[in-house]
Amino acid sequence: MPKVSDDRLAARRREILDGARHCFAEYGYDGATVKRIEESTGLSRGAIFHHFKDKEALFLALAQEDAERMADVAAEAGLVQVMRDVLARPQDFDWLGTRLEIARKLRTDKSFRDAWLGHSADLEKATLDRLERGRASGRLREDVPTEVLVKYLDLVLDGLITRLATGQPTDDLHAVLDLVEESVRVSR
Amino acid sequence: MPKVSDDRLAARRREILDGARHCFAEYGYDGATVKRIEESTGLSRGAIFHHFKDKEALFLALAQEDAERMADVAAEAGLVQVMRDVLARPQDFDWLGTRLEIARKLRTDKSFRDAWLGHSADLEKATLDRLERGRASGRLREDVPTEVLVKYLDLVLDGLITRLATGQPTDDLHAVLDLVEESVRVSR
Repeated sequence: MPKVSDDRLAARRREILDGARHCFAEYGYDGATVKRIEESTGLSRGAIFHHFKDKEALFLALAQEDAERMADVAAEAGLVQVMRDVLARPQDFDWLGTRLEIARKLRTDKSFRDAWLGHSADLEKATLDRLERGRASGRLREDVPTEVLVKYLDLVLDGLITRLATGQPTDDLHAVLDLVEESVRVSR
Repeated sequence: MPKVSDDRLAARRREILDGARHCFAEYGYDGATVKRIEESTGLSRGAIFHHFKDKEALFLALAQEDAERMADVAAEAGLVQVMRDVLARPQDFDWLGTRLEIARKLRTDKSFRDAWLGHSADLEKATLDRLERGRASGRLREDVPTEVLVKYLDLVLDGLITRLATGQPTDDLHAVLDLVEESVRVSR
């Protein structure tokens, strides 16, 4: 067997993730069958499951990527900016709708939930750190504990994703996000 | 055939709705097969579909009941109180998790979405009316249009239901709802 370079492996892994993301967005978690993932990645199941143990692992890897990207934005510019990014390019977040379909799985499958919540924890940590910095610089309101503010922003993000995933309009939410942003800041 | 009284019909309808609610909560939308709905209602499919055209109609009737109940509370005490009720008795709202599973259907099935959004409109109207009264009595902040406040509260409710449906803890959300409530009121 020829030795496959690390670059080649990384590129292959990238192809699989991108194809699978489209596939989940289009067909949902259950609808994204192995056959459809083969079609959308242009690769055989052998090649796909060489990189990822199973569909669940592939799905969680995508969730991990998102969480990392969101955590980067949250660390730099805050969770409200993450939400503004979602509003600005809803099509990039299409596949997040799938996370609604896995609600039952999250509720009933402990190891799946643990893996999933591990990613959320990264995002929460990044948000918390940024808020703490905001507090240090006097931008953040003083009368509510930072953890409450994080949970609040998190709840709004969940609402936003749900709204997007159910096909409701989101272009009227910019003013709502202004209100959310303001409500974590020092007194108006 | 003996004539069945209106009371009897109403009681039967009630039985079907209660049984179906449990069935949806336990198995989800797709998992709530006709056979399982028969089991949880203790009635035959003939009896069930005498009252409701199909599973979709049954599901929408339950959504309508919820929307009416929430609209009553929202009209009287506001949408934040609706959310406090959800936090106080999460088990009563178990079945709402199903609404996440139908996200795809909402997104892709226009007539289903129209029926569903019709119920949301009632709740939105009740919330809007209550906010307008709050504005008249000087409790509501003046610097944000009422429609923006309604959308804001609605978004938080969506987040709350999502959190509940994915089995995440909700008992730490009381302080978050205090913040939400305060953020629609006149300046702190």
